[in-house]
This record gives sequence, C-alpha cells and structure tokens, in this order.
Amino acid sequence: MKIKGIGGEFGLIERIKKNVRLFSKDVILGIGDDSAVLKYGKKYLLLKTDMLVQDVHFSLKHSTPEQIGARAIEQNVSDIASMGGLPKYALVSLALPKNTEVDFVDRLYRGINKKSGKYKISVVGGDLSQSSKVVVGIFLAGFVENKYLALRSGARISDLVFCSGDAGKSAVGLELLKNNKKGKSIKKHLEPCARLDLARKLAKIGINSMIDISDGIASEIGHICHESKVGAVIYADKIPMSKNTINDAKKLNKNPLDFALYGGEDFELVFTADKSKLKQLKKYDVKVIGKIVDKKYGIKLVKNNKEFRLKSGFDHFK
Amino acid sequence: MKIKGIGGEFGLIERIKKNVRLFSKDVILGIGDDSAVLKYGKKYLLLKTDMLVQDVHFSLKHSTPEQIGARAIEQNVSDIASMGGLPKYALVSLALPKNTEVDFVDRLYRGINKKSGKYKISVVGGDLSQSSKVVVGIFLAGFVENKYLALRSGARISDLVFCSGDAGKSAVGLELLKNNKKGKSIKKHLEPCARLDLARKLAKIGINSMIDISDGIASEIGHICHESKVGAVIYADKIPMSKNTINDAKKLNKNPLDFALYGGEDFELVFTADKSKLKQLKKYDVKVIGKIVDKKYGIKLVKNNKEFRLKSGFDHFK
Repeated sequence: MKIKGIGGEFGLIERIKKNVRLFSKDVILGIGDDSAVLKYGKKYLLLKTDMLVQDVHFSLKHSTPEQIGARAIEQNVSDIASMGGLPKYALVSLALPKNTEVDFVDRLYRGINKKSGKYKISVVGGDLSQSSKVVVGIFLAGFVENKYLALRSGARISDLVFCSGDAGKSAVGLELLKNNKKGKSIKKHLEPCARLDLARKLAKIGINSMIDISDGIASEIGHICHESKVGAVIYADKIPMSKNTINDAKKLNKNPLDFALYGGEDFELVFTADKSKLKQLKKYDVKVIGKIVDKKYGIKLVKNNKEFRLKSGFDHFK
Repeated sequence: MKIKGIGGEFGLIERIKKNVRLFSKDVILGIGDDSAVLKYGKKYLLLKTDMLVQDVHFSLKHSTPEQIGARAIEQNVSDIASMGGLPKYALVSLALPKNTEVDFVDRLYRGINKKSGKYKISVVGGDLSQSSKVVVGIFLAGFVENKYLALRSGARISDLVFCSGDAGKSAVGLELLKNNKKGKSIKKHLEPCARLDLARKLAKIGINSMIDISDGIASEIGHICHESKVGAVIYADKIPMSKNTINDAKKLNKNPLDFALYGGEDFELVFTADKSKLKQLKKYDVKVIGKIVDKKYGIKLVKNNKEFRLKSGFDHFK
C-alpha cells in the first residue's frame, strides 16, 4: 500500500507514533507537536528538525542560496516559537552534488548565519555528504520556561481562535512562480519570517494552545482540534489577508481564501486563548478568526452565513 | 571553485567553522568533534546529526529497509559514544519518493526502533518530506558527565594510541558488494555496530582523547593530531584486523591494511591514553597501535621498518 492509502503524511506520522517507544520519564511530549518537549532542570528542552529538499521545498531557479539557508533557519525557528520557546543551538546537515561550487556553500551559509545571528542561535555542528540534489536539514535545540510552554493540545471549549499577521501570502507567491507571473507575494514565499518575538509575548500573556502555519490554517486548526479533542468554528471573513495577497490571487483567477486556508509556509501563528485575554492580545498583530466548540460539532468554516466542513491542507504524500 | 579545490569535505568544514558565530558561553565545543558539547546543568548536552543518502551511503539493492534504519541509529550513536556520553533522544528526518510503500517505512522504522530500544533512546520527533531518493537524517541528543567527556583535542605527547575491535571490515565488505563477490565482511558493512558500552568504560577509566572510525584510521588519527596539536606514529603490524577481513581483502587482490587505514564506517574507536592506564585498558577489546609524539614529527606510519607519511581517508568531495 502507498502512503496516501493510510491517510498520507499525517496518517504515516500517527502510525510511526504508535510504534516508537519512550524510555525516559523526562519526555513531556514526543511525536505530535511542532517540537519535542523534554524535561531538563528548571526548563524544558525543545528539539526540532525540518529538512528542505531541492525541487520539493525550493527550486534553484527561483531561490538564491542565501534565501535557501535563511529559510531553513526561519522554518525551524517557527516551530520552536510556536511552543513558546527560544532557539539556542543549531546543527546543519547538508547534502550536496559532488561538483558543487564553494561559492554556493558560502552563500547558503551566509543565509544560515544571517538568520542565526538575528535569533542569537549558535551553529554548533552538522554533517556534510554527497547527493544528487541539494538537501538542507536543520536541527534546532531550544528552551522554554515550564510556565510558557504552548502546546497544540491546550485548546479549551469557548477559547477564541487567533491568527497572527496575514495568511496565504507564501502560497500565492509560490503559485505566481509556478505560473511565471509577477507579484509582491513572491518575496513572501522566498523569504518567510518566523514570528519568534510575537510568540514569546503571546506565551507570556498566557494562551492555551499554539501552532505555526506550515500547511495552511485549515490543517493547523485541524491539528489543534485533534490534539485538544475539541471542535472549532472559523469565520471566513475574519481571516486576515493582505492587499498584496488578494491582488496576486486575482492575477491567478483564484480565491485568496483558498491560499490562506489550504496553502502553507506562512510561518504565522494560529493560537487559542480565553476570552479574558482579548484586551491584552488586541495590542498585538493578531486577529480573532473563530472559536473553539465541543468536539461533536466538528471543524466548521462559516462563509456567507453558510457552514462548511473544513478540509485539511498540504500533504507531501497525497 | 569546486569543493575539492579547498581540500574537500574537511576543508569545507574548516571554512564553515570560521564563519559561524557563537552566541552562548555554554558552547563548550561547536563544529570540530563527533558531537557538539553544550554546558547544561551538571552534565553536558551532546548534539549530533548524520544523514544517510540513497546511492551514496546505501543502496536499496544491497540493504534491507531494516538495515538502513538500524545503521542510521548506530552511526549517530557511535558519535555520542566517542564523546564518552550516552544517547537519550532521537529525531528522525525522512525524505521519501512520493510512491513509497508503507511497508518500506514500517521496515525502516523497525530497524530504527530495534536499535533505539537497544540503546534506550526515545524517538521523540522528526520530519517527513518528499524527495526523489531516500534520505534518512538522524538527530541525536545525549548527555555526558563533565568528568567523562572525551574530545579529539585531548591527546598528549607520549600517550599510547589504541584501536578497539578490528578495523577495515566494513570497507572491505563494501568493496565485495561493488565487485559482486561474497564474504563475511558484507554483513559487517550492512550491519555496523557502535561501541557504546566499551566507550563508556573507556571514558570512566580516564582516557585523553577519542574518536570513532567513520573514514578510516588514518583520517581519525589525523583529526586527533590536528585538534590536539600533536603528531603520531602508527605501527602497521599492530593494527587489528580479523581473519575475515584479511581473507576478503585477498579475494579482491587488495592489501587489507588499506581498508583499515583508509576505509571507513567501522564505528570502532580510536583513542589515546596515558601509559599508566595500559594495565586497566588491556582487560578490554582494545589494542595499542601507536603513540603520540611532538607535532614536528608529523603523522607517520611505520611499516616493514620504514616510515611513511599517513594519508587521510574517505572524502565526500574529493
């Protein structure tokens, strides 16, 4: 049977999760969130890895080496951020074609070092090997104070659902590239930014659950609901989108909402918090997009006063 | 300029090392040993990553999925072992062709889980993505008590140089496979084992430097000498090799010593210790193969009473 036959990427993750064994009581959270959470002293150790593969996550035709290196760091930082934590150490695993130019590696590392500097991450190791395509694997270790830890599983019924910044920009940018069209969203796709500062502020205010947008709002809401055993109602007209995203979607004759819901890699944050936090949260770059309800109601999208079942987002194996 | 123009893999690592910045006083050791060493509480945190790439590190023609998964863990454990530490947590980064069978992933994880169980490593996360070739990246976090930390840089003049087990077996096995020949070394290549138990015992006895054999004894001695700023004399006739290795090398009309010196992935240990430890060390599966001398003498191989300069081992980009 192919991977898509067991529900694609997420079906496979569930299958893997069932078969791995944990040998330590220090594992607070293993497979199933943006980062692993391990008890160690007064803080939690967070471990995260994400790999970028040439012609899957990036194309050498569209991305500069600097952009690839920068994105590899941003993407992993985003997953430490969404736990409420701060990244501290990175390992870089590079697989490169044998005839790679030193200049390419220099420029890739310029991107890695620029972003590591921005986030005060020390690059402390890595691995070099050969391959037919460029692969950049980043391993990030970070820390979070126990009280600031934000999980996918903490959403409670009647929580408000929030989205940071604006959604859909990276996905519409990618679609422009694929269609040889121009637009401001392209830069958003090639140079995404994690919301580390914002995530830390949210964690300190006290939110109930958080995740970063890797595969689209629909998929992320699905993860929060699955892990928290709740349902959700999302209001289509509340989902924040920039004018550029809307304009660029028009160029493609597509509904911008589809990019926000089902396109990924925005690295914005989706989170839930008690209503009592609304006043404090309003000071930041976040918008209410829905609410958490009982699991029996499922996950609904309200659009033009009609209710729809919210489908999930991008999947590598579907 | 191509990577081989700046000295290949190790030239590139030196170049990368010069350009990364460290932002934390907790970094005891960044790029330049088998694992990164980070101060954290009463122990050191060790971080390690190593990637296996299809048709570079393994062939689906020769290795079963179980063997690939098992080897990915063993290879990374070996690098935690050679620091004197114990592995604790693993993340698994998998890139797979879109049409991969679920059975392949199940079997790959059977290998990963078997070895994780053997070493009591909790698999706490990972990443799944698509690619044209199978890539297995392992990120391992482990710990070592401060007093047991073993570095490449600790060798002292007049130290004895030791090698564990027997060398060359994996490299000769690979060469048999490439030449469609049979022999017991093939299993050694497909199913290498880290020497974690032994490494811990050595660390507790008190050795001065240690490294695992990834690229051949010559290369590993080179790393120890470089990092410790010393020279070494290695005696060819003292290098331990099994009868199988010698027999299998004969089938290839090659000198078995070349496999031990310049072939890698044995995951045996090369280490140095003060002469006073010799009696204690003799109880274990280790042999004296040489001694550490002043840097000015360089790194020499003594063979048939003649001295040769020791060349380095395998390089991905040469």
